[in-house]
Amino acid sequence: MPHIDLTTDFPGIRSLLLFRPETAAPLNHLAQTLLHDPHESLSAGERELIASYVSRLNECTYCSNIHEAIARHQLGDQANLMDEVLRDPGTASITPKLRALLAIAAKVQEGGKHVTSREIDAAKAEGATDIEIHDTVLIAAAFCMYNRYVDGLATWQPDDPAMYNKMGEQRAREGYYTPPVKVTPRESEPHVL
Amino acid sequence: MPHIDLTTDFPGIRSLLLFRPETAAPLNHLAQTLLHDPHESLSAGERELIASYVSRLNECTYCSNIHEAIARHQLGDQANLMDEVLRDPGTASITPKLRALLAIAAKVQEGGKHVTSREIDAAKAEGATDIEIHDTVLIAAAFCMYNRYVDGLATWQPDDPAMYNKMGEQRAREGYYTPPVKVTPRESEPHVL
Repeated sequence: MPHIDLTTDFPGIRSLLLFRPETAAPLNHLAQTLLHDPHESLSAGERELIASYVSRLNECTYCSNIHEAIARHQLGDQANLMDEVLRDPGTASITPKLRALLAIAAKVQEGGKHVTSREIDAAKAEGATDIEIHDTVLIAAAFCMYNRYVDGLATWQPDDPAMYNKMGEQRAREGYYTPPVKVTPRESEPHVL
Repeated sequence: MPHIDLTTDFPGIRSLLLFRPETAAPLNHLAQTLLHDPHESLSAGERELIASYVSRLNECTYCSNIHEAIARHQLGDQANLMDEVLRDPGTASITPKLRALLAIAAKVQEGGKHVTSREIDAAKAEGATDIEIHDTVLIAAAFCMYNRYVDGLATWQPDDPAMYNKMGEQRAREGYYTPPVKVTPRESEPHVL
């Protein structure tokens, strides 16, 4: 049960974006820029993978599930990389550069000062550019915000994978500016409208 | 020394906003909306006070110093409240409602799931509205992002209080959309241009 009266049956951050359109605008703009817009060198799938990895570290059910679903759609025939990273980024068959960027993201999740020149140098040795390091730090930091926002207000976070798959397909296709998909809670869902 | 080549002598987040204008736009928009724009019931000083309190909990030198300076300018003849909150929010001569909102912010800093109905009920008992609770959670969450961004890329963070006072006076007056104040590093500043 959400901590405030959200008066909608949208899940996770969607209920908050509808509650407060003034802050929804920059929050959507930031997600669109970091995750969906064309990028110099990181694919949308790679960026969504970083976002879902950090959300999993923060144990945010809604954010980790939805960004995993988006990442799978964005990665296409490489969707298995998402599963491999969730099992262990150290052994996943991703590029060494992406592995080094995920290590930076994990440090950011712990706290900004946890990032040291050791992780940065390792990423640069694998060919990571300043823009890639910058964007990895900001994606990880941004999800330390989104995750706290979604959990700190105790939003409704369904368990049904089919819901996340449907929402993830739309986000992967349309980005973050379009209206949210309305999902119908199951009878068993512990959700009070 | 910053982890990436920022090629400017602006401090803290300012150097990052100049490095990446694409993400600067939504980051400034979010700060402007949360902290500076007119609000139903929380003053700009109260909102800056929450931001600086969370930044202090995250031990981010630049963000805590600059938002303390902005809060002092916004609070005017109540600027002493900033010092009292930094000493101990539990005994500061702030309203019971603001004290309860700071308690929520401190829980958000730990993690979204740390916020329980206990803190929320305590704030509502002191008259906090849903909008105030929402905005407190989002301000605290946002500073868990800004702080990680600023520290995660090891930006230059001067110690000189006069610099923060100058920058804080401008932000308090003009908000977050205007160009940053250029500050000159002292000879002794360990800053490499």
